[in-house]
Amino acid sequence: MDKFRRNERISAMMKILSDSPNQLFTLSSFCDRFQTAKSTMSEDIDILRSVVETFGLGEIHTVTGAAGGVMYRATINRDQAARYIGNLAASLSGTDRILPGGFLYLSDILSHPEITRWMGQIIATEYYSVRPDFVLTMETKGIPVALTTAGALGVPLVIARHSSKVYEGSAVNINYVSGSSGSIQTMSLSRRAVQEGQSCLVVDDFLKGGGTAKGMEDLMREFNVNVVGKAFVMETKSPSHKRISDYKSLMVLDINHSDSDADSATVTPSAWLHS
Amino acid sequence: MDKFRRNERISAMMKILSDSPNQLFTLSSFCDRFQTAKSTMSEDIDILRSVVETFGLGEIHTVTGAAGGVMYRATINRDQAARYIGNLAASLSGTDRILPGGFLYLSDILSHPEITRWMGQIIATEYYSVRPDFVLTMETKGIPVALTTAGALGVPLVIARHSSKVYEGSAVNINYVSGSSGSIQTMSLSRRAVQEGQSCLVVDDFLKGGGTAKGMEDLMREFNVNVVGKAFVMETKSPSHKRISDYKSLMVLDINHSDSDADSATVTPSAWLHS
Repeated sequence: MDKFRRNERISAMMKILSDSPNQLFTLSSFCDRFQTAKSTMSEDIDILRSVVETFGLGEIHTVTGAAGGVMYRATINRDQAARYIGNLAASLSGTDRILPGGFLYLSDILSHPEITRWMGQIIATEYYSVRPDFVLTMETKGIPVALTTAGALGVPLVIARHSSKVYEGSAVNINYVSGSSGSIQTMSLSRRAVQEGQSCLVVDDFLKGGGTAKGMEDLMREFNVNVVGKAFVMETKSPSHKRISDYKSLMVLDINHSDSDADSATVTPSAWLHS
Repeated sequence: MDKFRRNERISAMMKILSDSPNQLFTLSSFCDRFQTAKSTMSEDIDILRSVVETFGLGEIHTVTGAAGGVMYRATINRDQAARYIGNLAASLSGTDRILPGGFLYLSDILSHPEITRWMGQIIATEYYSVRPDFVLTMETKGIPVALTTAGALGVPLVIARHSSKVYEGSAVNINYVSGSSGSIQTMSLSRRAVQEGQSCLVVDDFLKGGGTAKGMEDLMREFNVNVVGKAFVMETKSPSHKRISDYKSLMVLDINHSDSDADSATVTPSAWLHS
């Protein structure tokens, strides 16, 4: 007789798998843990797969063969993503969040654990197939969403800095042109942070001219790392020409300047979410 | 007849509850979602409670009465915490991570999704009972662990900056004395970020002299916010006198300087983990 009941095994497996997304667990590790036979475990996994499908809670993948096992992916389907980002974009539109100078206040959104978890999972869903070895962001505001993206992909997060720090050790520094202001800035990354030949997903909070994103691409070239994707929480409608291509954003920001009334923001979900 | 089987309901509930730690879900929301009776749902929750206890996966709390419901807490028990931090501390000790100037390389640890999730849950476990309204950190290196702590507590993360930024709006700036270097630094927080009368948990990566932590306390006083706890990933053994009291760290760092050999680091789990 099995030591644990099926509903005990399945709910515990759900938690263990979803705590470590995109990580392969061998069937035997679960058989040992729950003291049950492989055939029973396979049935458990089939049920788990159907549960996550039914309730829209991600995906269960099984890999057959000697190196096989089971893994969870924190995918968000296109409908869920479009609905979530649609609601978020609507809540950011209007005049409430406009700051002097025509900036949009986003700090609360960009550091909110649940909102950044959603955004990270939506981004990760698009990039599971290109298998990045790590996520790269540039300090500071993109760090939370870059962390949740890395978490969903099951890979480390690497953070580039504005200047080299003593506690980062020897570093590679590059200069880049800030796309919006045209000023020269520095970007620094510890030599220990990444290895040659790896591939990386760039994640950042904001894309305006694309100078910082271009700088991250240049930085990765210095490390012989292949950039396999670029994702942003928010891009500005203007300028329409960015210094980078082949990227995805979640939302598009258009600030409507007015001489007579207060400035207002129109935030819309990016077009690909509705395709 | 119920629409879903018990093992389907329980595993889906496990995922939904653990995705939103410390958030109360009403019984009726689950009854509606799974189209089942309250009595059945209560049995499901009892099973879930025993599963998380058996496998050390956190805690299920039920609140009775009209405003009642069920919630998940991502607690890590003392044994698990001591073992995890013990292994982590051992992996950080030695000469490999020592940088020129006697600094310890921690950037990879401090931005690793799984390691920061553990550390955040261990910290949250200690502070569930004081019910902070938000977590406060000072940019940059503590942001990931502050985010995972906030996530486990189900509260927002607020990030203080070194200087006020145009995209943060009007801000409160304070000057503070860096505990280790004695230099004067600035700390800035958007007025929109917090509300008077709230309570906050301070989380940061490193505690040496305590100047930055003291600065965060002073900053919160400006906002009439009550600091209900202070937690750090790593504190240095020296100086033993810090500018703050009543804090918890996960690990203690002692750098052993040597004229003849390479410097080396001794990292140990903090004493309270073994109490």
